[in-house]
Amino acid sequence: MANLGFVGLGVMGSRIVKRLLNAGHRVTGYNRTRAKAEDLIAAGMEWGETPRAVAEAADITFSMVSDTAALSSLAEGPEVILAGLSEGAGKIYVDMSTVSPRLIRDLAGRVATRGARMLETPVSGSVGAVEAGTLIFYVGGEAETLERVRPILETLGQKIIHMGANGQAISMKIAINLTLASQLLSLFEGVLLAERSGIPRAAALDALLNSVAASPAIKYRAPFILKMPDEVWFSVAMMQKDLQLALELGRELNVPLHTVALANEILTTARAMGYAEQDFAALFNVLARMAGGEA
Amino acid sequence: MANLGFVGLGVMGSRIVKRLLNAGHRVTGYNRTRAKAEDLIAAGMEWGETPRAVAEAADITFSMVSDTAALSSLAEGPEVILAGLSEGAGKIYVDMSTVSPRLIRDLAGRVATRGARMLETPVSGSVGAVEAGTLIFYVGGEAETLERVRPILETLGQKIIHMGANGQAISMKIAINLTLASQLLSLFEGVLLAERSGIPRAAALDALLNSVAASPAIKYRAPFILKMPDEVWFSVAMMQKDLQLALELGRELNVPLHTVALANEILTTARAMGYAEQDFAALFNVLARMAGGEA
Amino acid sequence: MANLGFVGLGVMGSRIVKRLLNAGHRVTGYNRTRAKAEDLIAAGMEWGETPRAVAEAADITFSMVSDTAALSSLAEGPEVILAGLSEGAGKIYVDMSTVSPRLIRDLAGRVATRGARMLETPVSGSVGAVEAGTLIFYVGGEAETLERVRPILETLGQKIIHMGANGQAISMKIAINLTLASQLLSLFEGVLLAERSGIPRAAALDALLNSVAASPAIKYRAPFILKMPDEVWFSVAMMQKDLQLALELGRELNVPLHTVALANEILTTARAMGYAEQDFAALFNVLARMAGGEA
Amino acid sequence: MANLGFVGLGVMGSRIVKRLLNAGHRVTGYNRTRAKAEDLIAAGMEWGETPRAVAEAADITFSMVSDTAALSSLAEGPEVILAGLSEGAGKIYVDMSTVSPRLIRDLAGRVATRGARMLETPVSGSVGAVEAGTLIFYVGGEAETLERVRPILETLGQKIIHMGANGQAISMKIAINLTLASQLLSLFEGVLLAERSGIPRAAALDALLNSVAASPAIKYRAPFILKMPDEVWFSVAMMQKDLQLALELGRELNVPLHTVALANEILTTARAMGYAEQDFAALFNVLARMAGGEA
Repeated sequence: MANLGFVGLGVMGSRIVKRLLNAGHRVTGYNRTRAKAEDLIAAGMEWGETPRAVAEAADITFSMVSDTAALSSLAEGPEVILAGLSEGAGKIYVDMSTVSPRLIRDLAGRVATRGARMLETPVSGSVGAVEAGTLIFYVGGEAETLERVRPILETLGQKIIHMGANGQAISMKIAINLTLASQLLSLFEGVLLAERSGIPRAAALDALLNSVAASPAIKYRAPFILKMPDEVWFSVAMMQKDLQLALELGRELNVPLHTVALANEILTTARAMGYAEQDFAALFNVLARMAGGEA
Repeated sequence: MANLGFVGLGVMGSRIVKRLLNAGHRVTGYNRTRAKAEDLIAAGMEWGETPRAVAEAADITFSMVSDTAALSSLAEGPEVILAGLSEGAGKIYVDMSTVSPRLIRDLAGRVATRGARMLETPVSGSVGAVEAGTLIFYVGGEAETLERVRPILETLGQKIIHMGANGQAISMKIAINLTLASQLLSLFEGVLLAERSGIPRAAALDALLNSVAASPAIKYRAPFILKMPDEVWFSVAMMQKDLQLALELGRELNVPLHTVALANEILTTARAMGYAEQDFAALFNVLARMAGGEA
Repeated sequence: MANLGFVGLGVMGSRIVKRLLNAGHRVTGYNRTRAKAEDLIAAGMEWGETPRAVAEAADITFSMVSDTAALSSLAEGPEVILAGLSEGAGKIYVDMSTVSPRLIRDLAGRVATRGARMLETPVSGSVGAVEAGTLIFYVGGEAETLERVRPILETLGQKIIHMGANGQAISMKIAINLTLASQLLSLFEGVLLAERSGIPRAAALDALLNSVAASPAIKYRAPFILKMPDEVWFSVAMMQKDLQLALELGRELNVPLHTVALANEILTTARAMGYAEQDFAALFNVLARMAGGEA
Repeated sequence: MANLGFVGLGVMGSRIVKRLLNAGHRVTGYNRTRAKAEDLIAAGMEWGETPRAVAEAADITFSMVSDTAALSSLAEGPEVILAGLSEGAGKIYVDMSTVSPRLIRDLAGRVATRGARMLETPVSGSVGAVEAGTLIFYVGGEAETLERVRPILETLGQKIIHMGANGQAISMKIAINLTLASQLLSLFEGVLLAERSGIPRAAALDALLNSVAASPAIKYRAPFILKMPDEVWFSVAMMQKDLQLALELGRELNVPLHTVALANEILTTARAMGYAEQDFAALFNVLARMAGGEA
């Protein structure tokens, strides 16, 4: 039974904490708006008044926030996680967010100067994967630190892949996510072309979903064009956030990313057309309107 | 035991005929260069002197050629398949090529005026799928004609999907194939970005192949970047041929195909760099060179 | 005073013939629909019953048609221009259309086998330039043939540039035209970005038209976004025709044309949105709609 | 004779100060490395020890730095320009850099809280234009402030265009610059296509430079493909900096910028191939290598 902390109790974070509590761990949690934490507190989570308080209370503190700016804000000031990583205590800080590799490397350096250790463990898989325990973790940081955290990760996911030093796991996550928008775009181009050829949309989609082109990501998301989901786990705006991370990394590392740049502009088109907060399967509507349809 | 004909004994056609012979069917075959047919003749195939002779000898005549121009040339002149589809005989002509839907519709019309019936049955799957009997057939044409041909197709593949009227199956095939090059491109962008982040190429590839981005097409072809295949079943030039069909269809039907247009220019780059006859996984080399590497 | 023929009395052709008549030349003309020729006949043009009749009557026969298919149709059959280029008569055939270089080279070869000579002289400049005598001619073919035709061209334009052998002038014309759509697109992106920044559209346009980015083509066409022209000289469909020629040539010669491929898909979007027959400045409306505006 | 200050004595700034001194103005100047200022000090410029000292000494203080980060660093800390804009003195701060509109608006707000006024006056034109006095100024800020600065600007340039409030001039400058890379790209595609058609490069370039596609920017820069310039005024890296500003603004304002995104990736390719510090006409070499040439 480990003594854990968790900062960021959003859609993913809250479900992960729930699972950790169910596994019998002690969890101290913090969220910017406390209201979202009440259910977890009722379920046994202890409330930390600040991120610093969480880190002070826990041996291993996790964070999971929505973007680079949010994680940066957790790193500056007197009450942040870093301030709670007291020296000599062998504490570990694990961030699960999808953010800039540069920020992760910077944070890891600052954590080390306090005598603590940091891992980044960005995840593959959405809400359903948390609930089913089938998340995949890409891990960046030292192997021995990973060994100490591994038992916790194993209660959450089915696969733990150590990519290398700090920053490399998040780079890998970005490298995977950059493929998602353009995969969907080319699939939707196929659906539209088939539909305009006289094949009903559902039949065209069915043929594509049973073809060699159907990745798990496509099988999950492409059917949304027949019926958009009630809850949005991965919006146009979130997808664009990840493509931006990819484009920044590509520029830094001199890797041209043609498909990403293209998809990124079509995501801007999607936002311009009003789909920012819809699932990014709304790219289909964008393409349909560009093809003269009413979507 | 059916009385079949087959025109076009290339990489795919010859293996299909082999399978038909093994299933006990009578097959009359023709190929532009007879030398390639000798093994099949030894295995029991009868030789037809012209496509017309094949169509005259068979109840159901198949053709499978490399592109629109090749199929067009099978349609004009005194010795073509059409000329052998004698009236009143209930003959069926089945083309398996990936060609222009317009040509298929045109051919089907001319076949009908001779009192015969035509199907197009473009296939999904390559050489391995023929040998394993796991081809997928997309079928365009009348349902009752399909019923007469179905038993033959069932000896060749595992799935037969009736898409609709003549032209619609080939449109569906094009709609599927248009996704393949851009899927691979975005995956390769991911591999390069990860590699430049310090992750070994094989590890980056492995992570991607086990991610939600990995379609069957990607799982099959992406590993070629570690070791290019000895035999090339789907070259840069062939992939570009299919993208051209998609772009033509998109123009005709007013469907913009941004990912296809992008991939098509990168395939031209691949040809310009000397990869025309390599497997189109050579797109990785193109991207690597564009990223300043030596590939 | 030369003895001339002219096949294709459209928007450009009819004005050129008018100018040739005004210069005192004898002109025999042909057009698919004779009605369009009545004004010219009234002005002194002789009517040729067929293209062949025109070529038989004239020493130098010009043609100017809308696309490759139209010019091809002028080359096959008993009554075509070729058939009228009787041997030993030192006749010259000059085509002014923007068509495939391959067709031009093919025609030039067939003209030569009849003992005649061919030039291609695609023009730069639209209706206004014909009337002002400021056309630019790019000439492909032999220099000595050009010298015989030069006096005629000089009555029509201000500049005659000999690019090289048959096919090279038309390639040059295509190389120039391929820049026009993407120039306009990037300019329009600038207008939209400035407008969304709070600068009135007319002021943004004015600043761009007075900047280093303003080519003659842009100065002429970009103001159409404030008021579309009453008559359309260069439509979305015509622009796309030229980009197609460029893309075909690029594929043949292994030159990737990224900006052309991009512009071509946005032209398809324009057609899909209903702008096919509008001036291609309608690309602004397409971009505005992609940016969420109503255009 | 005005009492002026100037922060940032680089390639452009030093020449502007020279011109101001020649016009008889008093100029106090500052540069991060003083060595670059020695010639100007010898020519009569007074040296300011800090940006703050410059702003304290001058009635109108100009700055011109290379990018958003450099200008940001001039805005934070005790010795920055802002700190020298003492209240009630009617001081004016004029920034000439090409930076983020957001930063300009932010700075202008902070300047106003100190009782001073700010203009941004990004310039069009390079080193030659400074020396010839032909710069174009786009001005953002209040009209009355502009009237006070106008006499100074008139000694430097030939045209002063008031675009609107703070931020709008810099947005306009970005809107103009975003066109430059893609204009050049499409022109170079034309040169390559013509060259591969058999037309010598110089002849192809000449035809394009005399065509309707030739903007002033193209006439200036495209000839560099025949001979790259000895000094680089606008490098691949600088061009990409401006495209990044455009892409950020487009994302903020929901304007998709397809041509910019494309050009940006090809600029990354240029950097990856080693051309970062060359004039951005090096895009020709990139395209030539993508077309299989040796460039």
